Amino acid sequence: MSILNQINGHDDLKGLHADQRVALCADIREAIVNVVKTNGGHLSSNLGVVELTVALYTVFDPIRDVIIWDVGHQTYAHKLLTGRQSAFNTLRKKDGLSGFPKTRESEADGFVAGHASNSVSAALGLARARDLKKEEHRIVAVIGDGALTGGMAYEALNDAGQSESDLLVILNDNAMSISDNVGGVNNMLSRMRTRPGYLRFKTRVKKTLQHVPMVGRSIMRFAAAVRDKIKFFVLPRRFFEEIGFTYIGPMDGHDTEGLIEVFSDAAKFKGPLFLHLITKKGKGMQNAELDPIKFHSVSVVSGTKAVSNSAVVGNVLIDIAAEDSRVVAITAAMKTGTGLQDFARLYPDRFFDVGIAEQHAVTLAAGMAAGGLRPYAAIYATFLQRAYDQILQDVCLPCLPMCFCVDRAGLVGEDGETHHGLFDIAMFSAMPNMRVYAPSTQKDLAELIAYARELSMPCAIRYPRGSLPQTAEPAELSTGAELCVVAVGRMAQLGRKLQAYFKAHGESVALINEMQIKPLPEGMADKLAQFKWVVTLEEGMEESGFGASISRRMSEKGNTRVLTVGVPEWFVPHAKVEEQFVMLGWTETGLYERIYKWREGMNNG
Amino acid sequence: MSILNQINGHDDLKGLHADQRVALCADIREAIVNVVKTNGGHLSSNLGVVELTVALYTVFDPIRDVIIWDVGHQTYAHKLLTGRQSAFNTLRKKDGLSGFPKTRESEADGFVAGHASNSVSAALGLARARDLKKEEHRIVAVIGDGALTGGMAYEALNDAGQSESDLLVILNDNAMSISDNVGGVNNMLSRMRTRPGYLRFKTRVKKTLQHVPMVGRSIMRFAAAVRDKIKFFVLPRRFFEEIGFTYIGPMDGHDTEGLIEVFSDAAKFKGPLFLHLITKKGKGMQNAELDPIKFHSVSVVSGTKAVSNSAVVGNVLIDIAAEDSRVVAITAAMKTGTGLQDFARLYPDRFFDVGIAEQHAVTLAAGMAAGGLRPYAAIYATFLQRAYDQILQDVCLPCLPMCFCVDRAGLVGEDGETHHGLFDIAMFSAMPNMRVYAPSTQKDLAELIAYARELSMPCAIRYPRGSLPQTAEPAELSTGAELCVVAVGRMAQLGRKLQAYFKAHGESVALINEMQIKPLPEGMADKLAQFKWVVTLEEGMEESGFGASISRRMSEKGNTRVLTVGVPEWFVPHAKVEEQFVMLGWTETGLYERIYKWREGMNNG
Repeated sequence: MSILNQINGHDDLKGLHADQRVALCADIREAIVNVVKTNGGHLSSNLGVVELTVALYTVFDPIRDVIIWDVGHQTYAHKLLTGRQSAFNTLRKKDGLSGFPKTRESEADGFVAGHASNSVSAALGLARARDLKKEEHRIVAVIGDGALTGGMAYEALNDAGQSESDLLVILNDNAMSISDNVGGVNNMLSRMRTRPGYLRFKTRVKKTLQHVPMVGRSIMRFAAAVRDKIKFFVLPRRFFEEIGFTYIGPMDGHDTEGLIEVFSDAAKFKGPLFLHLITKKGKGMQNAELDPIKFHSVSVVSGTKAVSNSAVVGNVLIDIAAEDSRVVAITAAMKTGTGLQDFARLYPDRFFDVGIAEQHAVTLAAGMAAGGLRPYAAIYATFLQRAYDQILQDVCLPCLPMCFCVDRAGLVGEDGETHHGLFDIAMFSAMPNMRVYAPSTQKDLAELIAYARELSMPCAIRYPRGSLPQTAEPAELSTGAELCVVAVGRMAQLGRKLQAYFKAHGESVALINEMQIKPLPEGMADKLAQFKWVVTLEEGMEESGFGASISRRMSEKGNTRVLTVGVPEWFVPHAKVEEQFVMLGWTETGLYERIYKWREGMNNG
Repeated sequence: MSILNQINGHDDLKGLHADQRVALCADIREAIVNVVKTNGGHLSSNLGVVELTVALYTVFDPIRDVIIWDVGHQTYAHKLLTGRQSAFNTLRKKDGLSGFPKTRESEADGFVAGHASNSVSAALGLARARDLKKEEHRIVAVIGDGALTGGMAYEALNDAGQSESDLLVILNDNAMSISDNVGGVNNMLSRMRTRPGYLRFKTRVKKTLQHVPMVGRSIMRFAAAVRDKIKFFVLPRRFFEEIGFTYIGPMDGHDTEGLIEVFSDAAKFKGPLFLHLITKKGKGMQNAELDPIKFHSVSVVSGTKAVSNSAVVGNVLIDIAAEDSRVVAITAAMKTGTGLQDFARLYPDRFFDVGIAEQHAVTLAAGMAAGGLRPYAAIYATFLQRAYDQILQDVCLPCLPMCFCVDRAGLVGEDGETHHGLFDIAMFSAMPNMRVYAPSTQKDLAELIAYARELSMPCAIRYPRGSLPQTAEPAELSTGAELCVVAVGRMAQLGRKLQAYFKAHGESVALINEMQIKPLPEGMADKLAQFKWVVTLEEGMEESGFGASISRRMSEKGNTRVLTVGVPEWFVPHAKVEEQFVMLGWTETGLYERIYKWREGMNNG
């Protein structure tokens, strides 16, 4: 029986000795690799924090204390050690464990995670609540160096530093965010990382610092009080200390015993404490160590693999960049995810990865557009939410010509609630000057991307994760029908099935596959006014989406009734995309029944 | 004739000698004080940058070069010196000059401003566009120390520092953002400010640095290459230099001649340059120097002054805080603006001003709510846009009980396009779990604020700048009417007038003053289904607002037609609020006519 099997909860960690912890880490790695092989998920980041998690929960109590994992994609070991071992094979499956922390899943999941850089804010809020309620427990935020690029983390550190709250911030510095790390702060950190011998620090610093009061001895062993001796260590320490933190590090994030020692002292420490750990993404697995970007997130795909929508976008951008020197591409830590790796290679001077910093990405693009370029900002729909104000104020208000390539728009499947791209249409809906498109084929997607640079205003082109069909037959606009189905984006396929289903049941139904969401195409309202019933289909929130926009116009205009099909007020849980479609009733049978009942109710009403 | 009158554009600055510049600065101050006295506006911040602006435009060309003023409320001198002197008395008036930079107003206005912390991103974008197009002009961003609290500025500095682009970032450090400055970075800056004798630097540093290549001599005179000699100067310099900037300063931002010298060298400098200036808000005006918060923004109000909605909220929070220890208040650099100054004084431990950092403010509140408190986050509607993602992911997804006090919701008048609170309803519309209220009287506002802490989910209470009526007669729901007007928030007053106007024209119209925007109150749809016509009135975007939500439901439900009255796809320019109502057609006569035509069109259609 493995050691891991004997750990039913974090309490069982207490009795282990060092050798057992080594074995436990090996067991955890094996469990993670096995589950990711079959279920997909994040690999490298989880392998990188095994020792950190074991040490953390040996010292802290994840139920009484609050541990917040920034982003949360690195919480597999956390889940294994907090009573979810037996369910671990359900990870990322429908009704199974989430791939991210989820407060409703376990008491040990301290705060919702998914979007980067929010952990310190949440932790400080929890710490202040604890202090006001005169409770006594520890609050810990674990944040990666990638998430430190996000300005929100800086806002929080700035506040936490002068708060005098007991709060431990652990920097899990693995020298790599999802794509390459970028920016000046990273340069600063990287010089520290490459400095040889940082692990020999403890002995070197030991002697000089034994008499400092208030701070445990082991912390002092690591404290980098090197000041003028070793230049590269001075700055981050000085920066974090200047803004109010006590800074310790850097130290080896895989040295379980050393971590237990420093955590034990940190648990007694008063005030905001910043602990800088160096870890290795993919630690313990040859392949993942070698290529952590590839193994950052693993998809389990069966059958032949179609060209992804992201790749289509990347290829078109390469083509138009060749003929139009104004074309530049921007991404926020998602170079590979958004299909821009070849563009980056071919046009290094015209490619900009700003790291996890969507706000800056958008206004940077706005500045470029104001300067006469035609920027394409390729950002996942869910992360674009971070830049709502910048899109509205810095892009739409001055009406700058740039294109948002809204990747992962719609349901994303296994990553679940925090990662769906379901809010972008609603987000854009009230923004003046913004045009929004949702192509239903890769051919249309490619044409739209190329067309965008000819517009004199901002536009957003949304497309789902995976692959749209390359082409499709034009929709059949049956004349004489009472009902018209208007489908946008990936929903075109469902629209076609629904039309066929109605036909099989004896009713001829008109179908419009529309790719222009905003503004509504000219003549659309007049066209729809000919029908008694209109049903809209979209992969986004029902409230404030494409259908809602049509509905409002039709209600002002005439007698046509509109049924809006989209996502109701609900955060859709993780499952396969196909399963999520079913959960939402987005099947031809489900919709047929819903429409039938709706018309019946209206006719009788 | 004053010197200012002889300056028809920035070119006329070139020929001046030092004495004339002193006189010019005095003239500019007089012009600013005079216009603010009659038109209202920002006083202290504009008085603080007079010398800076004169020096900047003596060296740089605001047409060929691009000067970006962060926030933009400090651009009165800029407007006076770039050909807008004769129109200056129209400042903030309808069809007059905007109180902020506006690219459509002048070529000299380099980028849209209004919301803090975006200048470095925009400047970097413009610099990169210039470099790719192989153009040669300078890009300058002027950012205040308050705006440096915003994480977005940090994202941009991080990127700009390693960009190798020629870019000048000027820190206008006046030791005060709109409210008190907060946070660790401010502590760090403040120690530099208070160190006596920083102006004697030039002589002290002069000798050591004459031989550094690439950098002009006068820059070197100011460069704080003091390293280990004067501790307090080391850190910011080291921080900015470590992330890639060359750092100069701090130096006196009111020493016009010194500034001209350093700007002349900066214009030739290669790479990202960070110049730290110390200025005094309200410089040159006794009162404004003494109380810069009071004189930050000056309103011109005639007649008796009613209690503001912000004050009502502040007072209720004080009352409920006394009986409920869970109540805490959070703001983002708007303590006085949101009416929290007394709360802050009475409950210093339960009041948190995070500075210009709305993202952090919201997730901090979420953390507090998760920790068992009942946080009230009082933030202007327009600035809340910065926290869209945090509201959705960190508050709505885990369904945390907290209340957004959405101040300045609706039209704000003279501050214009960038400051209206017109997008909040649309923003909240698609967010699951969020409740949204818009009271139409101060009595309702007070009751709602008190009620919010009993909710087990997030809510937002929106109220306009100024004062709602204290109470109002209940609306008259005429039976037998064909038309029902549903008004929310401040629009209740217009609804009542419209009802009276219809009555005077022989038609009895029903009126509902609703304060619950989201979710729609139970029974509302059934109630409205009795009417043939429904007209909704709201002070927010027509698309995706309250009316749109009603419209969608009525379209699915029955035969009632809905006309949605709100702001169409348009950024409403500055003017008085009453004028903006007229511009939007929000008068009883305007609406009567619109409704008349609408019904006529439908009856004939």
